[in-house]
Amino acid sequence: MSTPESRLQELGITLPLPAKPIANYVGVVHSGSLLVVSGQLPLHNGKLFTTGKLGASVSIETAVEAARYSMINVIAQVQVIVGSLSCVKRVVRLGGFIACTADFIDHATVMNGASDLAVAVFGDAGYHARSTIGVPSLPLDAPIEVEGLFEII
Amino acid sequence: MSTPESRLQELGITLPLPAKPIANYVGVVHSGSLLVVSGQLPLHNGKLFTTGKLGASVSIETAVEAARYSMINVIAQVQVIVGSLSCVKRVVRLGGFIACTADFIDHATVMNGASDLAVAVFGDAGYHARSTIGVPSLPLDAPIEVEGLFEII
Amino acid sequence: MSTPESRLQELGITLPLPAKPIANYVGVVHSGSLLVVSGQLPLHNGKLFTTGKLGASVSIETAVEAARYSMINVIAQVQVIVGSLSCVKRVVRLGGFIACTADFIDHATVMNGASDLAVAVFGDAGYHARSTIGVPSLPLDAPIEVEGLFEII
Repeated sequence: MSTPESRLQELGITLPLPAKPIANYVGVVHSGSLLVVSGQLPLHNGKLFTTGKLGASVSIETAVEAARYSMINVIAQVQVIVGSLSCVKRVVRLGGFIACTADFIDHATVMNGASDLAVAVFGDAGYHARSTIGVPSLPLDAPIEVEGLFEII
Repeated sequence: MSTPESRLQELGITLPLPAKPIANYVGVVHSGSLLVVSGQLPLHNGKLFTTGKLGASVSIETAVEAARYSMINVIAQVQVIVGSLSCVKRVVRLGGFIACTADFIDHATVMNGASDLAVAVFGDAGYHARSTIGVPSLPLDAPIEVEGLFEII
Repeated sequence: MSTPESRLQELGITLPLPAKPIANYVGVVHSGSLLVVSGQLPLHNGKLFTTGKLGASVSIETAVEAARYSMINVIAQVQVIVGSLSCVKRVVRLGGFIACTADFIDHATVMNGASDLAVAVFGDAGYHARSTIGVPSLPLDAPIEVEGLFEII
């Protein structure tokens, strides 16, 4: 029987050790049945997968991949708290922030990089509510930031 | 005795059938006593009521009406889950994203189009926490996106 | 034994009476064990501490102080509901919106003005999840807006 961990393995994804925030906040907070995950940048091997903005230097194809890296980091934060990802009852909500120009309109396609991975890893429990917006800039010139809300058992 | 449904009728509002998202997410997630509603664009009769940005091509008056349409779509998402809107114990939070220029400052007036409808429909249960921000652009060039958090009984 | 109130006093901070929103929303909503606090502008003595944007007219140093004022207003909203701030079990999440130019990249440093105060006032309970993003503009030309999610006992 497949599990979130076995699906990650099939996808060739190894969860990174989540970087500790270097300020007075944390990557994830557990409150009741909810896990609130801090906005995650598209870090890969400890550095940003890419920088820049949609509508300018970053292609949609690259940004989709960046969204996927942000989501991998979201899942890594969850994994640290729950141990087994099978404890995730539902991916409740993802928030997607896309650094872009004022004339960019394809935010949804970019954010699908995160949403598709949520469903690929968590199955039916991966279908989530979502808000996707443009922003003029993100920390460290990242092209995307993804935050998460999870229900756990 | 008035109900949210009777108030909608008095306001001449017919809730649309919420459009199914065409990607791996859903319009609303139920977790415990909370409903989390995805960011809703100002869709009316299946297409955007208007496009463009505040401070540029979209007037405040038009944007207020767009905010109202976004909120109608938020309520429609809730209705699908709860059946009767009287099951809404509280509109907990609305998030308003206003596509605008850098010199625009009247975000609050625009978002009132959503907030006023929340109170008109849900009465005392409609008073909500709210965050309203500007954004450089939204999916499909929409001028506003509204997300919601509801407590249900 | 130190309490949030005694730490506020040591920091020389007197919580303001939270301004009542002049529209159909409220500063804070209590739902179950959660308090959801509306986005707070950096009001000080009833007016904005400063206006403008990062990367333009507002320095990082000034914006850090503005973030602190926004957080003071968040805490003031909480205090009205709980009476004693010792009822705060956890600062669950802070959302930081930084009005800035497209080339600004130091959002995190600005938001630390809010995060540092959360930990200074609430101690271990003050470590929170956080999302920080840039925005083109905020209501009334504020440079920052901070929203909060708290768990109470």
